[in-house]
Amino acid sequence: MSSDPLVIFTPSGKRGHFPVGTPILTAARQLGVDLDSVCGGRGICSKCQITPGYGEFSKHGVTVRDDALSDWNAVEQRYKDKRGLKDDRRLGCQATVQGNVVIDVPPESQVHKQVVRKRAEARDIVLHPSTRLFYVEVAEPDMHDPSGDLERLCDALREQWQLDNVHADLHILQTMQPILRKGGWKVTVAVHLGDDQNPPRIMQIWPGYHDGSVYGLAVDLGSTTIAAHLCDLQTGAVLASSGVMNPQIRFGEDLMSRVSYSMMNPKGAEEMTRAVRDGMNGLFTQIAAEAGIDKALIVDAVFVCNPVMHHLFLGIDPFELGQAPFALTTSNALRLRSGDLGLDIHPSARVYFLPCIAGHVGADAAAVALSEAPDKSDDLVLIVDVGTNAEILLGNREKVLACSSPTGPAFEGAQISAGQRAAPGAIERVEIDPVSKAPRFKVIGSDLWSDEPGFDAEIGASGVTGICGSGIIEMVAEMRIHGIVDAPGLIGSPEQTGSDRCFLDGRTYSYLVFDGTAQGGPRITITNRDIREIQMAKAALYSGARLLMDKFGVDRVDRVVLAGAFGAHISPKHAMVLGMIPDAPLDKVTSAGNAAGTGARIALLNTAARAEIEATVRAIHKVETAIEPRFQEHFVNASAIPNAVEPFPILRSIVDLPTATFNTGGGGGGDAGADGGRRRRRRA
Amino acid sequence: MSSDPLVIFTPSGKRGHFPVGTPILTAARQLGVDLDSVCGGRGICSKCQITPGYGEFSKHGVTVRDDALSDWNAVEQRYKDKRGLKDDRRLGCQATVQGNVVIDVPPESQVHKQVVRKRAEARDIVLHPSTRLFYVEVAEPDMHDPSGDLERLCDALREQWQLDNVHADLHILQTMQPILRKGGWKVTVAVHLGDDQNPPRIMQIWPGYHDGSVYGLAVDLGSTTIAAHLCDLQTGAVLASSGVMNPQIRFGEDLMSRVSYSMMNPKGAEEMTRAVRDGMNGLFTQIAAEAGIDKALIVDAVFVCNPVMHHLFLGIDPFELGQAPFALTTSNALRLRSGDLGLDIHPSARVYFLPCIAGHVGADAAAVALSEAPDKSDDLVLIVDVGTNAEILLGNREKVLACSSPTGPAFEGAQISAGQRAAPGAIERVEIDPVSKAPRFKVIGSDLWSDEPGFDAEIGASGVTGICGSGIIEMVAEMRIHGIVDAPGLIGSPEQTGSDRCFLDGRTYSYLVFDGTAQGGPRITITNRDIREIQMAKAALYSGARLLMDKFGVDRVDRVVLAGAFGAHISPKHAMVLGMIPDAPLDKVTSAGNAAGTGARIALLNTAARAEIEATVRAIHKVETAIEPRFQEHFVNASAIPNAVEPFPILRSIVDLPTATFNTGGGGGGDAGADGGRRRRRRA
Repeated sequence: MSSDPLVIFTPSGKRGHFPVGTPILTAARQLGVDLDSVCGGRGICSKCQITPGYGEFSKHGVTVRDDALSDWNAVEQRYKDKRGLKDDRRLGCQATVQGNVVIDVPPESQVHKQVVRKRAEARDIVLHPSTRLFYVEVAEPDMHDPSGDLERLCDALREQWQLDNVHADLHILQTMQPILRKGGWKVTVAVHLGDDQNPPRIMQIWPGYHDGSVYGLAVDLGSTTIAAHLCDLQTGAVLASSGVMNPQIRFGEDLMSRVSYSMMNPKGAEEMTRAVRDGMNGLFTQIAAEAGIDKALIVDAVFVCNPVMHHLFLGIDPFELGQAPFALTTSNALRLRSGDLGLDIHPSARVYFLPCIAGHVGADAAAVALSEAPDKSDDLVLIVDVGTNAEILLGNREKVLACSSPTGPAFEGAQISAGQRAAPGAIERVEIDPVSKAPRFKVIGSDLWSDEPGFDAEIGASGVTGICGSGIIEMVAEMRIHGIVDAPGLIGSPEQTGSDRCFLDGRTYSYLVFDGTAQGGPRITITNRDIREIQMAKAALYSGARLLMDKFGVDRVDRVVLAGAFGAHISPKHAMVLGMIPDAPLDKVTSAGNAAGTGARIALLNTAARAEIEATVRAIHKVETAIEPRFQEHFVNASAIPNAVEPFPILRSIVDLPTATFNTGGGGGGDAGADGGRRRRRRA
Repeated sequence: MSSDPLVIFTPSGKRGHFPVGTPILTAARQLGVDLDSVCGGRGICSKCQITPGYGEFSKHGVTVRDDALSDWNAVEQRYKDKRGLKDDRRLGCQATVQGNVVIDVPPESQVHKQVVRKRAEARDIVLHPSTRLFYVEVAEPDMHDPSGDLERLCDALREQWQLDNVHADLHILQTMQPILRKGGWKVTVAVHLGDDQNPPRIMQIWPGYHDGSVYGLAVDLGSTTIAAHLCDLQTGAVLASSGVMNPQIRFGEDLMSRVSYSMMNPKGAEEMTRAVRDGMNGLFTQIAAEAGIDKALIVDAVFVCNPVMHHLFLGIDPFELGQAPFALTTSNALRLRSGDLGLDIHPSARVYFLPCIAGHVGADAAAVALSEAPDKSDDLVLIVDVGTNAEILLGNREKVLACSSPTGPAFEGAQISAGQRAAPGAIERVEIDPVSKAPRFKVIGSDLWSDEPGFDAEIGASGVTGICGSGIIEMVAEMRIHGIVDAPGLIGSPEQTGSDRCFLDGRTYSYLVFDGTAQGGPRITITNRDIREIQMAKAALYSGARLLMDKFGVDRVDRVVLAGAFGAHISPKHAMVLGMIPDAPLDKVTSAGNAAGTGARIALLNTAARAEIEATVRAIHKVETAIEPRFQEHFVNASAIPNAVEPFPILRSIVDLPTATFNTGGGGGGDAGADGGRRRRRRA
């Protein structure tokens, strides 16, 4: 056993004996302890701060004396005086081992720190950024041994940081000579650490020690909105989050209408490509301004999107995605440069697109898989990303299946008579009184129910304007629970329902939700056509999920995760009454928020996660609903509320659903099912 | 021993036994015989043509019967009928082994064929292009097993051509889907085979079998001219060679004046970068038109140039090259894309810059080293690339040294009273009559000597206009041989020289070469100032060479190679009389022509040569003349004609040089030496 002092690092538990006088940073490096440093141990950057522990550590079997570390030296003292240092902290590069010691590496001193996610069930993100900062001292040019400035800089990176085979882009060559001289041959270099396709590359150089960072973007390019997180690549912190409408909306609200636009107009795809790239650049300018950073320091960007957006953003005509067999140009992950896409950030910023799963299941679904990790789940999880097109994943450690299903825009309030986007004034929560059959509701912008005192005053100027997606789900489910709509989806007459809010509206009945006409507001009703739209949307969603369950060979799932901004607002009980999602314990239905955006953020902050999701996507079994005969059968069954054949025992243990049917003649619930085929042909 | 028939390939000598019915192409591939194929054995491309040999082959110990190969099949016959095939040829993919056979692979059927260089002493170029064409049959998309078109194309390249890890640039993704469908899932793909930094990449796709090629450019970017060879990358043939003036000339004739321009003008370097890139694009348009090819099919380009041109073309301010320690931004070889340099060829054409040797010894010198291969020479070779700045290499298998020396533009006719560029009317050859001391000469545009009948008529309109570089060298050397100029460089009086062509011209004498004033032409004389300019230029050249000889520890070299367009026109005897080059047998002084341009062509056609020259350059020992005290001493000695101290025994065994000196007072030969220091400060 060594007579040298024992150094124990926490939280890693790594330990080793080191000669008296060894700097803590050196010991950490030799043991492979994750202790950050930008200046390489010169006492400049303070990234290597550590907290020594003193006294008795019975767990480790050591006693740490007060003089276990060297006294403060001049460098350390000067740093503390000038920049400040927490009381219990030392600089790992200056403090040296004098006796047995226990050293805690606080999270902010770890390169690969955990970036904590808010949701309890979500795994933290391990920071593993593409680009890091390194301070180096470069040899001056020597006529006796001529070599380029770049070669000497690369020598310094190799010798001082063990970075091999580092290259530089042209813009670095164009700017580096004066920077090296300005810094007196001491510079801070941002190095992209490379990947399986590319060697490490110098992204930026600053004279002297640069106390700054470089940044990355995680972008969720949706059909409707483009949302981005701007992250600090050294800390993992989200500095700003922002979104804009996708400017392609002027070419068509949904994906299929954009594919049609490109088919109808010779330069249509190009126009849409330009529009989305312009929108992207606008967003980047805005988000960089919000965070107060120079957008030329955005060196990495990760994009997730559905296949049509993917193709249009890349400048690929989405023609083939509009027709069977829905062939993607490429499904693999893409590694490009900002310049390839006309993005106005760092001139050679790296751009990463997550892989697409299949022609209808895009990089956004891959991002959801990365965020929610069904492949690492012990129990069988169904993940549904609710949108115009629903992406559905089902799996556990054993295997993961994926499909998409064309829900249409009904869940976003489109094609619903009183439907609207989620905005102030929109009804988002609904309860129907079991006796009076009258609804009460909440609107976005107020926490009060509509029958509570002060409601009118609080909603103020906006008034009640319509019903948003989550409101419609609750509305229809409440109507079903309280016998206003029957299982096949027919609204009953006042006689059948016992409610004079039902009224004949053409050939079918409608239900009056709110009459604001006296105040100059809207008259909000649910028509039987609205019910049909919701039936078709939810049937598409359910039958996709059910098809995956068939393929998996199960009749139930352990838990359901609702992803997407919309998913965050859905009431699990009402979704289940509607038969949107399979029967499951209500506490096992959770929301993951914008899981696609989170997946993008994970891939941005942890480059190792990129290879991981690429492997996961390769292993995912893709199911194409269009060619599965059972899909149509499930769709017809799922048109009923909640379902014509599935028993939903857990739901029925909580809620009593009336059994009466209102159809006294032809027509009725079958319509929605028959309509499925038509919609199938329209999807993209 | 196998009972299967024996197949012997020539010229490789590779042999093996193969079952009856094996296609010759298959046998060749299994033995690693270099037999081309683009269509992969489908009888479409005819690249695999072979010549079977019949009868007795005692050397190989086999007799080939007439039925050693299968009969012509339908595919082969159809090809012959439609496209023609030489009588003794078969298609290697269709003809199968039936008995022992000797198969000759003609040069045009070899992928790595030898591209023959004209000079006897030059090594042939082994064709090893960056980009090759492959015909593939791609699987159609399948909804049951969705994958991107690119992934299926890459699968086909892997399965049918053993090409792994192939990537595609964005412009391929943007265009590939309709091409795949137009070709019925059969396409021809141009694949850049990658290098140590980059995986293979698809550069171009054509529907069906494409009977074409892709092209490359070898570009010698000189201070004065930009010269390019356009080559077919499949055959190695030069399709067109062309040149333009370097448009940077308007910013300064020589390098140093361009460096000064960039120092004096804030946007000067940018202007010059734009100028050279515009000139380059103009040249490329012109050369592609000359060869009748689409310049978007130029997928590879190799550039050689001196360090200042290198920096200006890349968009790097050459400021540091204008002052000690002459630090290059980078000396390594560069691998870029056409877009990085604004070159209007294939959108992602690969661009390769040979490495620079040192701050004054550029990629052009590296190209000379690649072409002339001093590192592979058994005897000690001195290679001099004569230009405004001379690059000098000295070496053999043991080691290679390099330096540059600031000769100035005198060898190009500048700063000489009657000097001019090499153009019709310029005196290029000179002989002085030993008795009359009258010169006779040849001018560019005529093969007649000026004293031969018909000379005046033949030179016609141009007349005699001046003296070009090679003419000046011969002129001064002839003047020295015939006692008109003395060893220190002074022109004698009529009395001293016995020639009334010598006349007092200010404070010194001049020598009358040609008086065309009666015909309205020029009066061409050699002034003593002209002699001084030539002395300084040749002294710079010689002292660089001599310094390398010192470093090598030798007093003589085995042979001398004169590179550069100018070098091709220098008379070895006269150059040696002048003392430009060290003493050597005249038949050991040869011209390599534009060796830098040839080096660029080698690097273009043989990608393996790139790694080779990079290694060679790393091993070259660089000598910086500016800091070598002996350089100044050599310079002073070399100012004399041929030299104040070197004996030049071989030269003196051929030529008697008068020993008289004309200086009767102060001044004289020392001037040139004293002037060397001033010029040193001006060089770049």
